[in-house]
Amino acid sequence: MHRIPSDQTTLTTADLDALGAIRSRCAGDILMSTTLAGCGHPGGSLSTLDALLLLYASMNLDPAAPHAADRDRVVISHGHVSPACYSVLAAAGFVEREEFLLGFRRAGNRFGGHVETVVPGVEWCSGNLGQGLAVGVGSALSLRRRASKASTFVLMGDGEQQKGQISEARRMGVKYGLDNLVAIVDYNGLQIGGKIDDVMYQDLPAVWAADGWNVFDIDGHDLPLMYTTYRRILQGDVPLTGKPSVILARTVMGKGLPFMEGDAKWHGQALKPDACQEALGYLQLDAGELDTLAAGREALGPEAGHPPIPAAPQPEIEVPPPHVYDADTVTDCRSGYGRVMEDLARANNTDGVPKVMAYSCDLEGSVKLKVFHQINPDALIECGIQEHTAAVAAGRISREGYRVFYSTFGAFAASEVYNQLRLNDYNDTHLKVVTTHCGLDVGEDGPTHQCLDYVGLMSNTFGIEIFCPADPNQCDRIVRHIASVPGNHFVAMGRSKMPMLTDVDGKVFYDADRPFVPGKADRLREGTDAAILAFGPTVWPAVKAHDLLATQGIQAAVYNMASLKPLDREAVKEAAATGRLLTAEDHHAATGLGALVATVLAEEGLAVRFARAGVEHFATSGKPADLYHLAGLDAEGLASRIQDLM
Amino acid sequence: MHRIPSDQTTLTTADLDALGAIRSRCAGDILMSTTLAGCGHPGGSLSTLDALLLLYASMNLDPAAPHAADRDRVVISHGHVSPACYSVLAAAGFVEREEFLLGFRRAGNRFGGHVETVVPGVEWCSGNLGQGLAVGVGSALSLRRRASKASTFVLMGDGEQQKGQISEARRMGVKYGLDNLVAIVDYNGLQIGGKIDDVMYQDLPAVWAADGWNVFDIDGHDLPLMYTTYRRILQGDVPLTGKPSVILARTVMGKGLPFMEGDAKWHGQALKPDACQEALGYLQLDAGELDTLAAGREALGPEAGHPPIPAAPQPEIEVPPPHVYDADTVTDCRSGYGRVMEDLARANNTDGVPKVMAYSCDLEGSVKLKVFHQINPDALIECGIQEHTAAVAAGRISREGYRVFYSTFGAFAASEVYNQLRLNDYNDTHLKVVTTHCGLDVGEDGPTHQCLDYVGLMSNTFGIEIFCPADPNQCDRIVRHIASVPGNHFVAMGRSKMPMLTDVDGKVFYDADRPFVPGKADRLREGTDAAILAFGPTVWPAVKAHDLLATQGIQAAVYNMASLKPLDREAVKEAAATGRLLTAEDHHAATGLGALVATVLAEEGLAVRFARAGVEHFATSGKPADLYHLAGLDAEGLASRIQDLM
Repeated sequence: MHRIPSDQTTLTTADLDALGAIRSRCAGDILMSTTLAGCGHPGGSLSTLDALLLLYASMNLDPAAPHAADRDRVVISHGHVSPACYSVLAAAGFVEREEFLLGFRRAGNRFGGHVETVVPGVEWCSGNLGQGLAVGVGSALSLRRRASKASTFVLMGDGEQQKGQISEARRMGVKYGLDNLVAIVDYNGLQIGGKIDDVMYQDLPAVWAADGWNVFDIDGHDLPLMYTTYRRILQGDVPLTGKPSVILARTVMGKGLPFMEGDAKWHGQALKPDACQEALGYLQLDAGELDTLAAGREALGPEAGHPPIPAAPQPEIEVPPPHVYDADTVTDCRSGYGRVMEDLARANNTDGVPKVMAYSCDLEGSVKLKVFHQINPDALIECGIQEHTAAVAAGRISREGYRVFYSTFGAFAASEVYNQLRLNDYNDTHLKVVTTHCGLDVGEDGPTHQCLDYVGLMSNTFGIEIFCPADPNQCDRIVRHIASVPGNHFVAMGRSKMPMLTDVDGKVFYDADRPFVPGKADRLREGTDAAILAFGPTVWPAVKAHDLLATQGIQAAVYNMASLKPLDREAVKEAAATGRLLTAEDHHAATGLGALVATVLAEEGLAVRFARAGVEHFATSGKPADLYHLAGLDAEGLASRIQDLM
Repeated sequence: MHRIPSDQTTLTTADLDALGAIRSRCAGDILMSTTLAGCGHPGGSLSTLDALLLLYASMNLDPAAPHAADRDRVVISHGHVSPACYSVLAAAGFVEREEFLLGFRRAGNRFGGHVETVVPGVEWCSGNLGQGLAVGVGSALSLRRRASKASTFVLMGDGEQQKGQISEARRMGVKYGLDNLVAIVDYNGLQIGGKIDDVMYQDLPAVWAADGWNVFDIDGHDLPLMYTTYRRILQGDVPLTGKPSVILARTVMGKGLPFMEGDAKWHGQALKPDACQEALGYLQLDAGELDTLAAGREALGPEAGHPPIPAAPQPEIEVPPPHVYDADTVTDCRSGYGRVMEDLARANNTDGVPKVMAYSCDLEGSVKLKVFHQINPDALIECGIQEHTAAVAAGRISREGYRVFYSTFGAFAASEVYNQLRLNDYNDTHLKVVTTHCGLDVGEDGPTHQCLDYVGLMSNTFGIEIFCPADPNQCDRIVRHIASVPGNHFVAMGRSKMPMLTDVDGKVFYDADRPFVPGKADRLREGTDAAILAFGPTVWPAVKAHDLLATQGIQAAVYNMASLKPLDREAVKEAAATGRLLTAEDHHAATGLGALVATVLAEEGLAVRFARAGVEHFATSGKPADLYHLAGLDAEGLASRIQDLM
């Protein structure tokens, strides 16, 4: 690949000649790859190509060390321009050109229809539009925190500018003074439905400027101008110093192929082989290569799969020993969370770059992160009421060598940003989503705030583990556990204060000797007539139901199923041996623990008397205890359900 | 309530005196209601009060006919100002003041912590911020379509301006020329975390102007100015005619109570009783009433519940008879959908106001709505790549007397906007979400576009029914069914073309005599050794697996479970009688049909040999047939799973 030295201020004629030759080859590869696959996005690939080519020719990106800590990051938000990306990566030596051309969009191959990080040189798996700028914010912030000189570039489409999440990310970039962040909009004026001005008009220069960005509205195919603009921005030669910059790169869809230029139909349609060969001829490339490659693909067929996403760097952090609340303490799980975060901050964030970071969305006090914030102000990223961008930026930064927590109410952390967490999961992030105010326990805020779906939602992901503490002691253990390991975790807790769980002798159950073990349930009370499987705020009512039932001669075991995913299948089988199972949850009755337990019973071929106690409809605003009573989730309600099973 | 005649251009002294007295009483009720509940949001209620008071005093809103077709609509987006709303509604005669004060935030009562439509005069249940402007867009668009002179006002907080969804709704308002839409931002400068400029700065006048709105940046407590501004806007006396307007109403949190004014802590905190009584005295109100009311509340306790949300008007539409595809036809379900939409448009949209409307997000062609659009251009609302706002606006308009469809790819219609659909469901909308490109059948677009969670997601709602057609004939029947009934429906289909399902004699199975019946599965093939329960694109592979297994002497019944919610429990029990059950789905294996069937088995106490075939991890980009093969979801894979159960 032709490289432009970092101290060079303008492009030379030699640069332009060299880049022009590479450009032609890449354009040919864009056309061939999509034609070979029979589908794909050649139009936007050709309009974005110049910007990408310049970046990989001039930025600090080394194919021999694609994950170097201080590399410049190039995030591609409009992931459907994967043919442009892969062709440039092939030209730059990150990947083998033939592997790309033979593999593009073929089942099991890593060269997918949208860019994926299994391909070196790709920073983020994208495809759902509007999220890349938030990724860039996370990346630029992480570089800023550790005083790296590296920059982050985010390439975006112009159609995707319609996504509201982008406005959130713009504000984040300005608030955190991310002058190491450069957005480049491929402003070709077209989207699937036609002209962007017709589909959904917006005044792009005005909206970026209104949000406080430096705006460069220039010809995106003018390589010398694009290059000097990159350089100006990186040197801080901008009107608003200390603020991020956007290049609105005016481009032409299908650039370089006269019959494709400016026609929206080439957004997502491949050329037929004949037309592709004609185009290759126009580009003065070997048109015959297409047939050779087609034959090669034909012989290959689907592959079984590709290697996993490369591992992200993990911080070495110290997790202080548990804090045990005694049996007389009454507090809420979120205070327990805050206490662990305080411990983590003191152990990891007082000297130099903070290793533990937390993202909040205007609810720092409610999620008990004030002390954490005070210990190192740089460690808490306050995102405002911008959950979508917060979730993505936090996900990104969790792949940058920090231990990252994201906390807000359940309704906003799970229900509102489910798709962002789904895509984080796919990106193999290491985010710790710790949510409060879940379930009816949110109380008087009422139905819109009742997060009754987090188990059901997170069960749809492939990699996010789900834990729900039954008391502040268990919360302490769970949070220390997730802090100590990589991976994506979702921890849900309610709002209310509660007493500590105790054993039958009145001693604290979750003491210092009982670490949290994923996939392991706890039998809190013994019983041979029936079993109640509960988690979170319904565990205490279940224990009280056990006591109530005992007075009636019914011995009901009580299990705390704090680890929802992975679930303790052995505990379910053990409980099923009683012949009667009741699940109890402050969660939608159809999609939480009840469904998980039912699946174990079905798969194990176990027939028992089975019932699910949960939330059957939205409750009203009200005190949690009253709402639990009305929903049949208090001790009396649960005992009554067990009696029904007898 | 003091009323201001609609032809009055300015407020008189008498108006101001009368409104001032009502204002004091409302302020007192705001303080008392929150103090009595022990929680709530007095600060923003007091800053929003003037704007609300003026609206209910001057707009066309009649407490005797709160659902009149041509009423002005007042949407409150920052639903936590419910005390302000309820106090004004009490003053205006919509509700009984004492019922509000005794009921506010009490379990089972209709006067919740965030505004709810069970209270007459409230247009939308809100609480999750950032969505009200999209509601207003839906409302204003519906009024515009039928040439109503009524206006829509959207009251919003200033903190919530951070939500990206608002920028989407702004663009929608401009694109559709909604000069009957007025946004009023309660610009008190504070949010939970402190000053909005500190939490997440934005230049509000600039961003609204950049998106093309008329901006009035005025003192929100200056009643004469606020009133004349309302009137100017409604009369079209604005700089940008034909465009919507926003009033940035500069206000003071806690307005009217000197010790509360400008202090963010009163955002979400109630006064203690002593302080409340002191404040009542300051307002020259009867401080003693608080004790009387407190005693009244004490005596009441939780209520069992309140009446449902009032029914929305439903259109009388004609649903033409089914179109039956013959056994030789090969097409995709989405074309079947497009064909029904064409029929509906011809029958209902060619004369006057369209009765059937559809919302698209830049994918009109992919979801096959082009002909529908051509028949009546006013019937298709093209939202651009703005799914969040589209989902909410479509939900709103479905409560305005239209039959409304919302169509895009599954990943964008389910995963991305799950929370918007959850809140639609809670608002008792009647939205028909018809999604395409679900599952691995999305093919080469790859993992980010694989919607594998729609059953799991929609199962978390209380009211949305879920259907998935197994072929274009069944698709035709399903879409005609949902068009003919009110309620929320989610229909999922894949992308690929397929042959029609046939019976053992080769005749089309879903012929004109087989209407779709929710909650009713179809036994497509007989078998006594085992049963395969499938839906959508796995039904054909299941039928082929039946044939394969028959050659090996295994008789496997095949059921099409197109109605996922409600599920056909009797069919599951019947299938379980074979002793071996396999569920098969192009969906996450843990959260789809398998989980639903397992729950029936567990609840019925049925022990069988049970297995779930589904998607166990993200697949790659690739041809659907290859991806099905790799995931074990083709005929061979399913047959093999049945063999394992034998």
